[in-house]
Amino acid sequence: MGPGPSDIAPRVLAALASPTVGHLDPYFLKVMDETQQMLRQVFCTKNPLTLAVSGTGSAGMEACVVNLIEPGDRMIVCVNGVFGGRMADVARRAGADVTVLERPYGEIFSSEEIAAAVKKVQPKVLGIVNAETSTGAYQPVEEIAKIVHDAGGLILVDCVTSLGGMPLEVDGWQLDAVYSGTQKCLACPPGLAPVTFSPRAVEAIDKRKTKVASWYLDMTMVKSYWGQDRAYHHTAPINMNYALHEALRAVLEEGLEARFARHLKNHKALKAGLQALGMEYAVAEGQQLPMLNAVKIPAGCDDAKVRGQLLNQFGIEIGGGLGSMKGKVWRIGLMGETSTERNVLLCLAALERCLSDQGIKVTGGAGVAAANEAYRAAAKA
Amino acid sequence: MGPGPSDIAPRVLAALASPTVGHLDPYFLKVMDETQQMLRQVFCTKNPLTLAVSGTGSAGMEACVVNLIEPGDRMIVCVNGVFGGRMADVARRAGADVTVLERPYGEIFSSEEIAAAVKKVQPKVLGIVNAETSTGAYQPVEEIAKIVHDAGGLILVDCVTSLGGMPLEVDGWQLDAVYSGTQKCLACPPGLAPVTFSPRAVEAIDKRKTKVASWYLDMTMVKSYWGQDRAYHHTAPINMNYALHEALRAVLEEGLEARFARHLKNHKALKAGLQALGMEYAVAEGQQLPMLNAVKIPAGCDDAKVRGQLLNQFGIEIGGGLGSMKGKVWRIGLMGETSTERNVLLCLAALERCLSDQGIKVTGGAGVAAANEAYRAAAKA
Repeated sequence: MGPGPSDIAPRVLAALASPTVGHLDPYFLKVMDETQQMLRQVFCTKNPLTLAVSGTGSAGMEACVVNLIEPGDRMIVCVNGVFGGRMADVARRAGADVTVLERPYGEIFSSEEIAAAVKKVQPKVLGIVNAETSTGAYQPVEEIAKIVHDAGGLILVDCVTSLGGMPLEVDGWQLDAVYSGTQKCLACPPGLAPVTFSPRAVEAIDKRKTKVASWYLDMTMVKSYWGQDRAYHHTAPINMNYALHEALRAVLEEGLEARFARHLKNHKALKAGLQALGMEYAVAEGQQLPMLNAVKIPAGCDDAKVRGQLLNQFGIEIGGGLGSMKGKVWRIGLMGETSTERNVLLCLAALERCLSDQGIKVTGGAGVAAANEAYRAAAKA
Repeated sequence: MGPGPSDIAPRVLAALASPTVGHLDPYFLKVMDETQQMLRQVFCTKNPLTLAVSGTGSAGMEACVVNLIEPGDRMIVCVNGVFGGRMADVARRAGADVTVLERPYGEIFSSEEIAAAVKKVQPKVLGIVNAETSTGAYQPVEEIAKIVHDAGGLILVDCVTSLGGMPLEVDGWQLDAVYSGTQKCLACPPGLAPVTFSPRAVEAIDKRKTKVASWYLDMTMVKSYWGQDRAYHHTAPINMNYALHEALRAVLEEGLEARFARHLKNHKALKAGLQALGMEYAVAEGQQLPMLNAVKIPAGCDDAKVRGQLLNQFGIEIGGGLGSMKGKVWRIGLMGETSTERNVLLCLAALERCLSDQGIKVTGGAGVAAANEAYRAAAKA
């Protein structure tokens, strides 16, 4: 129940452990094709250039940045958490002329401030985080995409935590480069980074005057391996791709709408429970991610002790704060397979115990009762 | 039986499918520590900076290059196959002033020509491939390391195919930056790249004036996660690390000496058999890799048809040629779990059938008989 990796279904672990075949084996090529088709469904896109980068989510971030950016290109990066900050760092290393737009951790950006910055900077690329894993804040990006496009730029979006857990419309919102990770709401082990590039982004890549700084992440070559050429680039992580293939099948069997509803329902119940235990969210109502609940650590509570007790006594991992939120928040994940009624109730029951042990005054059973009440209300609706 | 991925033992697949824990879970930190200790044993080094990069072998190559190279640094890259060529490409993208030293595919470099080039160029780094997976050639590097050090440079070595299958002495030979892959002689699925950096290499990294071009592969940050700080960098591919941990345990249980002897014995038997079938190696005697046997395709033989028949009729994958060897050689791997008497005999028996079907004249049973004879001789010795 941390910020990912989330729990993995037995069927996905079984697929992961299937015998390893060659990276040009006809069977594996079929796995790749089907994975691309399923990724397009989950991303809600028709983008031909949709595939899994052979690294974790941060490799997906780097892949998006280094393919779109050439040295000297202007880029705006919106930073309201650790992952926005990381994107700015990646962009500077890629030689971008970076303008950072900042918001305190836990807040989000308004279209107006983005429009003002875009007008001033006229960036080739604007990078923004749709779901800040470090703060639990949800940033709408549809309107921002319009603003960026009207100024002739491209929008690059971090959807590591949102993909598969809440609505994300790559084509509908006209996003140009999007990356995610496998270990959040897709419920697959970490190791791959799903990415998708719009035709507009592909055109920008095709027009580059310099080679992509990273050989490993160069989409002009990677796409030849995933495409019809099947030109050998690097040896794909075969078994990780088996796992992603099976995880995507599970996502689509459940159905995106049903999956989003499940994530939302469990989020609401957890929230009701946490609030009944006297805890506050670090992000304003209406801007909270359903799959990542960042709550303020009650005054007088020992951060490390509570997390240690949850792990050792109850087998529950929750995340600590990152960056400026270190020591100030806990991050409770309800992602993919982890997003269940069972986990919500267990977490509230265990947290009540830990808080009591820390001398925090809580009404016994209040968290669990409030969550159960929320579930009953949801069932009636 | 291709150039990797090689076969995976059931115990490694079982480890791969173990439940995913968090990347800062005490259990996973223990797995990381033990993996580092075992990697040091397999690399024959005491280098503290020894770990598994979260990508495949080519990510390991890029990690070594981008950490050692700053824009404008002089680098010599020795190219006698696809992977040397790849290293030159990676180095140029990293901004190196690259001098390429060339040899035809299948040949190796003499110390004299390296010494002359080093004297002339005075490189910060010399990159060379110890085991060229594209040609099957073995390049000794110990004397070259001395030459490079005497000129004040660093030696960067590709050991993707050699590690775990034949002697490799990182400390004994004084190699500065070495990368490998998991899917060759370590008999683990592809997805991680073991790397090791000498104190001399670490000093060079510490003295950098510019940030490493790749955020994902920046060892100054990655080592804080693998070291005592445990500072979060990226989410490690948890399950892949379980698999590598178990694969390394298997390597050390067998023992490096015994493992090298097994690879050599099976190589000799396969070679005896292939030669009895009238086939020739693409690399000169004495320079052949035991784990990767590149043989010339007999005149009049259809490359793709034979490989297709081997795969579809007998379940055997062998590799085609790469680069200038495309359509001219087959690459038969005997790596890790794949290096068995069973596979050698089966491959020879099936190949005899395929060659006959292509109208090539072969003496029936000659390949298998010669291999069996080689095994008997080895058993007596």
